[in-house]
Amino acid sequence: MDIEAFRKAGHEVVDKICDYYASLEQRPVGAQVKPGFLREAVPDEAPEKGEEWSVISKDYDEIILPGITHWQAPGFMAYFPANATFEGCLADLHAAAISNPAFNWSCSPSVTELEILVLDWIAKALHLSPAFLSTSEVGGGIILGSASEVAVTVMVAARERALAMLSDARGAEVPADGGARPEATVQETGTQHKDLDDEEQWGKWRGDATGRLVAYGTTQTHSIGSKACLILGLAFRALDVKAEDGYALRGDVLRKALEEDTAKGRVPFMLIGTFGTTSSGAVDNLKEIGQVAKDYPMLWLHCDAAYAGVAMSLPEVREASTDLAAINECFDSYSTNMHKWGLVQFDCSPLFVRDRGALTRALTVTPEYLRTKHGDAGSVLDLRNMQISLGRRFRSLKVWFVLRSFGLEGFRAHLRNGISLAQGFAEQLREHGKPFAIVAPPRYALVVFRLDPTGAGGQSEELDALNRRFWEAIQEYSKEIQLTQTVLPEVGFCIRLVVGAPSTRQQHIDMAWRILQECADKTLKA
Amino acid sequence: MDIEAFRKAGHEVVDKICDYYASLEQRPVGAQVKPGFLREAVPDEAPEKGEEWSVISKDYDEIILPGITHWQAPGFMAYFPANATFEGCLADLHAAAISNPAFNWSCSPSVTELEILVLDWIAKALHLSPAFLSTSEVGGGIILGSASEVAVTVMVAARERALAMLSDARGAEVPADGGARPEATVQETGTQHKDLDDEEQWGKWRGDATGRLVAYGTTQTHSIGSKACLILGLAFRALDVKAEDGYALRGDVLRKALEEDTAKGRVPFMLIGTFGTTSSGAVDNLKEIGQVAKDYPMLWLHCDAAYAGVAMSLPEVREASTDLAAINECFDSYSTNMHKWGLVQFDCSPLFVRDRGALTRALTVTPEYLRTKHGDAGSVLDLRNMQISLGRRFRSLKVWFVLRSFGLEGFRAHLRNGISLAQGFAEQLREHGKPFAIVAPPRYALVVFRLDPTGAGGQSEELDALNRRFWEAIQEYSKEIQLTQTVLPEVGFCIRLVVGAPSTRQQHIDMAWRILQECADKTLKA
Repeated sequence: MDIEAFRKAGHEVVDKICDYYASLEQRPVGAQVKPGFLREAVPDEAPEKGEEWSVISKDYDEIILPGITHWQAPGFMAYFPANATFEGCLADLHAAAISNPAFNWSCSPSVTELEILVLDWIAKALHLSPAFLSTSEVGGGIILGSASEVAVTVMVAARERALAMLSDARGAEVPADGGARPEATVQETGTQHKDLDDEEQWGKWRGDATGRLVAYGTTQTHSIGSKACLILGLAFRALDVKAEDGYALRGDVLRKALEEDTAKGRVPFMLIGTFGTTSSGAVDNLKEIGQVAKDYPMLWLHCDAAYAGVAMSLPEVREASTDLAAINECFDSYSTNMHKWGLVQFDCSPLFVRDRGALTRALTVTPEYLRTKHGDAGSVLDLRNMQISLGRRFRSLKVWFVLRSFGLEGFRAHLRNGISLAQGFAEQLREHGKPFAIVAPPRYALVVFRLDPTGAGGQSEELDALNRRFWEAIQEYSKEIQLTQTVLPEVGFCIRLVVGAPSTRQQHIDMAWRILQECADKTLKA
Repeated sequence: MDIEAFRKAGHEVVDKICDYYASLEQRPVGAQVKPGFLREAVPDEAPEKGEEWSVISKDYDEIILPGITHWQAPGFMAYFPANATFEGCLADLHAAAISNPAFNWSCSPSVTELEILVLDWIAKALHLSPAFLSTSEVGGGIILGSASEVAVTVMVAARERALAMLSDARGAEVPADGGARPEATVQETGTQHKDLDDEEQWGKWRGDATGRLVAYGTTQTHSIGSKACLILGLAFRALDVKAEDGYALRGDVLRKALEEDTAKGRVPFMLIGTFGTTSSGAVDNLKEIGQVAKDYPMLWLHCDAAYAGVAMSLPEVREASTDLAAINECFDSYSTNMHKWGLVQFDCSPLFVRDRGALTRALTVTPEYLRTKHGDAGSVLDLRNMQISLGRRFRSLKVWFVLRSFGLEGFRAHLRNGISLAQGFAEQLREHGKPFAIVAPPRYALVVFRLDPTGAGGQSEELDALNRRFWEAIQEYSKEIQLTQTVLPEVGFCIRLVVGAPSTRQQHIDMAWRILQECADKTLKA
């Protein structure tokens, strides 16, 4: 495709996207296809001769689009939102055109520098402490691809920090830096392990120490926590939370666990505190956690605010709790997904840390072919040293476009729209009462409910069975709405409704409410 | 921005990209900016009120673009290429518009299904064994974001497979699956670790066994290998390679290392064999490696073909060696980056494995809120269970657009153009002779050379110093060309030139050659 062919095709695709958004409401929200549908439509090998763009483009409409679940549709209220905006589209298009995997500053200075700047914009919008800004010179951020990637990355830094502290406590028999080699080149890394005998004792010590590390979360922590432990081969302990606490981790529960484990020779090295859990939007008691952690200096506190973190841009959310103050005072890292409710296309997971060095000490490897004058001089940040991957996309551009075009005013209006629609829906449920029951305090734009025809509450096989049938009935309406199910302690099986697509209006909440009433009737009659 | 505003802005951006490509040759290849340049141009917080698109768009041209290093420019011959194509731009634009983090099949069936299909297209184009195709039902692929992510992901699978084998050998005292819990829900994961006492013995065994694992590569293996070990806290042993072997790992060197380590109670669990190293394009002797590995069933063989893998689509490359046969017969996994020389925008790193189960056993965690009817029934693949992250971008769309629009014919023509230009450049260097010297066999589109005015060869401080000055001189021409430096065993400091941008023609090689001669003159006169 040459420049003029691209001009024509590009204009057509832009027009198609306009048509797509104009017709979003008429499309089935959930894809109405069966597993394997695409294999029937797509040849089993690449064509030998190039094909015309018009043919490819037609296939996109006729083969691909019917198999897409429309997360931007107003009836999409499942999982968490994955906002797309036109500004984000334009940024991704620009980024694709100048494609460069900016692993070093010099690979594309704008990519590194804009990322650092917009991270400061986000941190300020959320009222994070100046300690998390690049201007602190010590703390700062990086945009990663997902909260999962954030969890693994932070856990590596926390592990290395804990091992370094343990090693310091043990004395000079082991490397004082705990095994992190900030400036190691590939050759040095090679040498270092080449004769393992010399390091045999050190390796055994490290293996044993690593085996004693324990990361903490709750039964409500997102599976990214236990998955990070699975990946790194570390122990994860999920603490119990109670319905009466709104599923928040309390300080006394944490303290008891830390004391028990420490008494057994284990080393608590990381805690994931959640600001807005997936199942119910619960917020752990970050203040109490921060207090307890003061007695455990090795415990890295990470706040996973993947979904709800963006809501800290609202004064009414910040002022309603002590969570922000606790994060700013006590937490080592904080992450929220701009690609959920934050108007920025997937993927965009900003991570803020109080000590950038904790990441770079754990993650830097610099072979000769990655060295640059500026990198050697330390006059720039090479962001690859704060992440797993070498290459990186130009993700900050979409943040820049979105925040400038919406302004913080528009950003907050979008969040408030979601919250107000969801709280209105919760009010409707509450007023209607039986057979519906809200099962957790509605948080942000998330409402969790179930059928409880007698209002008995609690957890029972009968209620679970009833609500699984209710869930089956809801899924029959997948063309109109998409919701998700979950399981809550002391409750059991229940249904989540999350408002967040920019296209969702009151009329779509009304539609969801009508469908839920129909499904409830059907389920109860059956 | 509403639909009509996007239509206007979208058309403008498409036209801008056309202008950008038309003017690519006139732009400085390397960004001519100083560290911190952007901080002066960008306000230090997000605007309160939304700004006009015209203002934002103007800033993109005036503030961002000057800080971009143009990897698509014909004079970009550094690192490895990061191809962008118009087809890739259109795919990324569509993907941004329908943005969805397709972690489950149901989240967007087309995203999962197209990925599986185009991976088969790629595997067939590269003549990989049917064992690596989805149609094998056992093997198959996934598109990850980078070769680094591939290395970590595969290493987790290799570690778990090795631990399971060790555990089987040890008997029933430890879980037979080696600790992997394919179907664990978050709650179960919680329970499992809740009372660590019950698993104390198991944990100690696992910790000790993990500490004995060793991964292998060579001094030429990309730093992604040692970095994966750094992340996972595992030992990496970099084996020596010789210039006389073209920097390829030989079977006898590997066997000696495996015997030594096994004798010491260590457990070799993974080897990264490279098809096209970063420093010199070297290819390890995969046939000899495969033979040796037959005696070490626990050794996972991964082939990192990040750069050169796409060249296996050329019969002349496939037929020139026994490497493909060795991969197909002996290797457990294979990865190449379509986003380097493969015409697909960053990021796109296909990973092929012989046993998908090795990934899913190591990486599956399924809380209730991620369960789906089809996932529970096992009638679909949920690709999140083969990777670190939960969310995933619609990366297969760009592969589909590119391979269809270019056809395999066009794909191969692009590769042959790069190879032919690079080999022509190597020929020029060879014919010219002193003060230039080619220091490793030119491979694919990569030529590694240095100044060696006396033709003495070998490694010396004098030659290193001279070539570091030569490198300084070359960097003065960053507006015209971009190259990269490296260090090779038995050689020392040298310069890499890689052809790969679709825009590079003979005239640009001629320009590079003129600049290199000028730089050589200056360096030698100084």
